[in-house]
Amino acid sequence: MSFTGLSAFPLTPQHGGEIDELAVTALVRRLVAAGVDSITVLGSTGSYAYLDRAERRRVIELALRHADGVPVLAGVGALATRDVLHLTEDAQRAGVSGVLLAPVSYQPLTHDDVAGLYGDVTANLSVPLVVYDNPGTTHFAFTDELYARVAALPHVASIKIPGVPADPAEAAARIRSLRSILPGHVTIGVSGDPVAATGLVAGCDAWYSVLGGTLPEPALRITRAAQAGDTSGAVEASGHLRPLWDLFARHGSFRVIAGVAEELGLATRPCLPRPLLGLPDADRAEVRRVIERLELR
Amino acid sequence: MSFTGLSAFPLTPQHGGEIDELAVTALVRRLVAAGVDSITVLGSTGSYAYLDRAERRRVIELALRHADGVPVLAGVGALATRDVLHLTEDAQRAGVSGVLLAPVSYQPLTHDDVAGLYGDVTANLSVPLVVYDNPGTTHFAFTDELYARVAALPHVASIKIPGVPADPAEAAARIRSLRSILPGHVTIGVSGDPVAATGLVAGCDAWYSVLGGTLPEPALRITRAAQAGDTSGAVEASGHLRPLWDLFARHGSFRVIAGVAEELGLATRPCLPRPLLGLPDADRAEVRRVIERLELR
Repeated sequence: MSFTGLSAFPLTPQHGGEIDELAVTALVRRLVAAGVDSITVLGSTGSYAYLDRAERRRVIELALRHADGVPVLAGVGALATRDVLHLTEDAQRAGVSGVLLAPVSYQPLTHDDVAGLYGDVTANLSVPLVVYDNPGTTHFAFTDELYARVAALPHVASIKIPGVPADPAEAAARIRSLRSILPGHVTIGVSGDPVAATGLVAGCDAWYSVLGGTLPEPALRITRAAQAGDTSGAVEASGHLRPLWDLFARHGSFRVIAGVAEELGLATRPCLPRPLLGLPDADRAEVRRVIERLELR
Repeated sequence: MSFTGLSAFPLTPQHGGEIDELAVTALVRRLVAAGVDSITVLGSTGSYAYLDRAERRRVIELALRHADGVPVLAGVGALATRDVLHLTEDAQRAGVSGVLLAPVSYQPLTHDDVAGLYGDVTANLSVPLVVYDNPGTTHFAFTDELYARVAALPHVASIKIPGVPADPAEAAARIRSLRSILPGHVTIGVSGDPVAATGLVAGCDAWYSVLGGTLPEPALRITRAAQAGDTSGAVEASGHLRPLWDLFARHGSFRVIAGVAEELGLATRPCLPRPLLGLPDADRAEVRRVIERLELR
């Protein structure tokens, strides 16, 4: 497990207020069949923040059972450090290849709080950890100094950054600068799907992908082109998805990809945990049009 | 229970990673002895977001056992609606006089999500509900339109607003305007302690108070003056606390009041749930100076 390439983040669809185990299983098999490099269950896309400990254990078990050797990572974030430690223990015992941890917040967190959280968790860890920087959900902003401080902890293997500048030269400069402050063994993974091609071309080692968790094939086209040094191929494959990126920008990638999964029959509507409602009908119609136009399946 | 006057929000101090039951009990008795109008356990100040279901049930039980007839409200917020429903059921069964609910978020919430959350919860409710608008922790911004939509639901008794404009005339205009869109039986409670005197003078019915949960006497001086129509008395009593408000502005009221409680021996250091660290030593020294200067006890 080297924390490179395409890490696919599947949804955890619900059905009648419970986890839809058949849908989870089918999504994992779909990702394995497509040939993703790793599967990260219980990311933000996997609704981890809304699931209890038993449910999170169950999702990990299902993923491991059907992963057919593809490395499985699992999100272990929670508000209280105590809960993060329990979830981490569960994930390790089940046999994950790594854990993903975001500094989830209710009270605004200080840099010392966050460094302490990663310190507490890595002190009890036997698998690699991905630092999950997702300010849109955590409302915590890492600085480069804090990246460096956390990346120096044992077991830290990768940082999932929220995005890169849209301009290719600026993106490359950003990744160079970030790499200069991180230990050599810590990979950099881009998220924010619309800029993923730019990020990979700019030198990111991995793409932590919402798209790839439901639609692995277009995500793999972008990833493999970038890995082969085919910059224009990666950028074109991403540009082809512009109508989807526009929907992501308008409604957030999470609700759009849930709508896509429902439309494609990969989940039953409504598949999100309340209070999160799916897209309203008018926006759903637009999702359908984009699916048809881009021939997504 | 009329959702007026001073509602005091005590901390839920921890000791060695567990709830410090003696400290919780002592805080509740302190508030009762001071004569607050209600006690709201498990508010943001009470760390509700970091406690599990059993702990939250225990805090409610302790508060009710020692409240000596003072109405006890309890926060029931959680990310997943399912959990909010369980917590609400627990609080009702224990015998609270009301529940307090904030739209806690991980994925950004839409107005429809939030209206749906309050709809789901009030449909299962037998006690009054306080709508808890706290954008600093929930990252959700109510509009007046949404206030009106939620306030029209059954059992909604009060809205805890995040503050009022510092200018007295603007504050009064704001409360008049808010009252014009709310049903007559729904009270308006101010929070944001530094503007509480302004809010009460401007016509707020209640003060949902961080200060009052640890230092009820200065909070009562402000409240009783405002209730008696003694505007200058209320404003002066609040102005006297300026050094404390300055600390609140710099470090957030939550960490400062936890430091005050530790300094006064009402909690043992560190009393906050990890990953939340107490104030660093330099800031603690300043808390001590303010306690001495204002003769807080």
